[in-house]
Amino acid sequence: MNLTILGCYAATPRTITNPTSQVLEIRNRMFLIDCGEGTQVQLRKNKIKFSKISHIFISHLHGDHLYGLVGLVSTYMLLGRVADLHIYGPKGIKEIITLQLKLSNSWTNYNLYFHELTSKESETVFEDDNVIVKTIPLKHRIYTNGFLFQEKFTERKLDINAVLNYEIDQVYYQKIKNGSDITLEDGRVIPNSELTFDPEPSKSYAFCSDTLYNEEMLPIIQDVDVLYHESTFLETEAVLAQKTMHSTAKEAARIALKANAKNLVLGHYSTRYESILKFKEEAETIFPNVLLGNDGESFSF
Amino acid sequence: MNLTILGCYAATPRTITNPTSQVLEIRNRMFLIDCGEGTQVQLRKNKIKFSKISHIFISHLHGDHLYGLVGLVSTYMLLGRVADLHIYGPKGIKEIITLQLKLSNSWTNYNLYFHELTSKESETVFEDDNVIVKTIPLKHRIYTNGFLFQEKFTERKLDINAVLNYEIDQVYYQKIKNGSDITLEDGRVIPNSELTFDPEPSKSYAFCSDTLYNEEMLPIIQDVDVLYHESTFLETEAVLAQKTMHSTAKEAARIALKANAKNLVLGHYSTRYESILKFKEEAETIFPNVLLGNDGESFSF
Repeated sequence: MNLTILGCYAATPRTITNPTSQVLEIRNRMFLIDCGEGTQVQLRKNKIKFSKISHIFISHLHGDHLYGLVGLVSTYMLLGRVADLHIYGPKGIKEIITLQLKLSNSWTNYNLYFHELTSKESETVFEDDNVIVKTIPLKHRIYTNGFLFQEKFTERKLDINAVLNYEIDQVYYQKIKNGSDITLEDGRVIPNSELTFDPEPSKSYAFCSDTLYNEEMLPIIQDVDVLYHESTFLETEAVLAQKTMHSTAKEAARIALKANAKNLVLGHYSTRYESILKFKEEAETIFPNVLLGNDGESFSF
Repeated sequence: MNLTILGCYAATPRTITNPTSQVLEIRNRMFLIDCGEGTQVQLRKNKIKFSKISHIFISHLHGDHLYGLVGLVSTYMLLGRVADLHIYGPKGIKEIITLQLKLSNSWTNYNLYFHELTSKESETVFEDDNVIVKTIPLKHRIYTNGFLFQEKFTERKLDINAVLNYEIDQVYYQKIKNGSDITLEDGRVIPNSELTFDPEPSKSYAFCSDTLYNEEMLPIIQDVDVLYHESTFLETEAVLAQKTMHSTAKEAARIALKANAKNLVLGHYSTRYESILKFKEEAETIFPNVLLGNDGESFSF
């Protein structure tokens, strides 16, 4: 599981900082999460093969999470994309994109599917053989969802020496990886545990931005491997955080602690701060494994 | 008159090139022309005090001329702008911007005025004491206008030694600058030519992008000081230029020649070319005063 932060600053794009967007690679799938202005250039800067992205998740319709989307959709068109593109986001997102395509008399040469979200409860919005994506209802000034990405149960690892030793035919390998015991020709039953190693544990990633401190998300993100939680402000601006429905670094850490997350990645910093190091310091007073998200930073888990 | 090219490449923004946007400073007014994605960051990179912009002119609703506008409108809001902002562009531009503001539940704290254009004839869209702006109907795949910026007739320059010599009272100075003769108390009439110097000539700038080669614009831009004319392609791609309703560098030069322009600035280069130097070479075979527009370049006239 690999996370690349394309942008993790609040509000206005600047020369040196970018609004929210990130790429999650999980089981060889590439998901784009949020798409602030300039995301397509950030994708290029970070040398991400963005033709591989087929699913884009938009948390909410504030510009710093959205305004790069129509440009990316158009660029895919100009690059001759043919693969389907799925966009998940709040109701209204389809109208925003299609109005602009219509008025520019430009239609995509690929299929563009919108999955508009309206539920206030967590729901599964994407699922295939490897990954499941659920919404995380957040509390912000407008309708907002975070997203939980979970690897699905992985198959067990074949102990190649053991299967060769028992002279088991290759046609049974998939069955063994799925967890079955094997009956040999002489009638002996070999338990699966003698033929396999434990699988890699299934990993999970929760993206939570933008939101007030909100314990209602805890059951959804419990035991998550990596929690990205917005920290727009430091505790010195706690009143402003409350007023604008954002969180402080300390609050992000409190959520990570209560959710029993393994790692916390911070981001969505207000551009009022000269250095972001204090966000890490503040969060570490509550929770130990804090990673400071920053534009262009990649994390492997 | 000062022109800053924020971006002058066609289609898709990339790491090193930006879509169309430029700032024209004329008589201490600052006009923004077109607003591709990333324009607000380009304004910052080029250290332009963009709070001084009150009038934005959008040629057409293709993304590479438009997709940065909603972000700029939002940023003005976040920066606490109070001054009015006027946006001139094709019909539909108001719906595009207001839909996005509505769905993000964000309204500007300043007055935002849309001046939607539909005429296929040249018309005056802005006028004050110093500058007049007219549309230049262009031929492109969708409804498109260029813009002609003209300084208005300037007042004559006072010859301060002459007026002091005749002991003329200061209350008459403005009248003299406006061109009047003066009758002294002793009855002598002093002709204006003895009291003033010729004014600075009025300058003009024509922005023409995107367009097919189109001689119908010639009467509107005749004798212009500076013509920015798109040159998406070189003559080797003349067929493609025709098909996509763009121009070649040679065609841009031909328009400059026939319009008796003093200078030609090229731009809107397709990103297929490794170097833009050939655009200048090609145009110079037709017209002598060719300037190669490039992102971050400023020209004073």
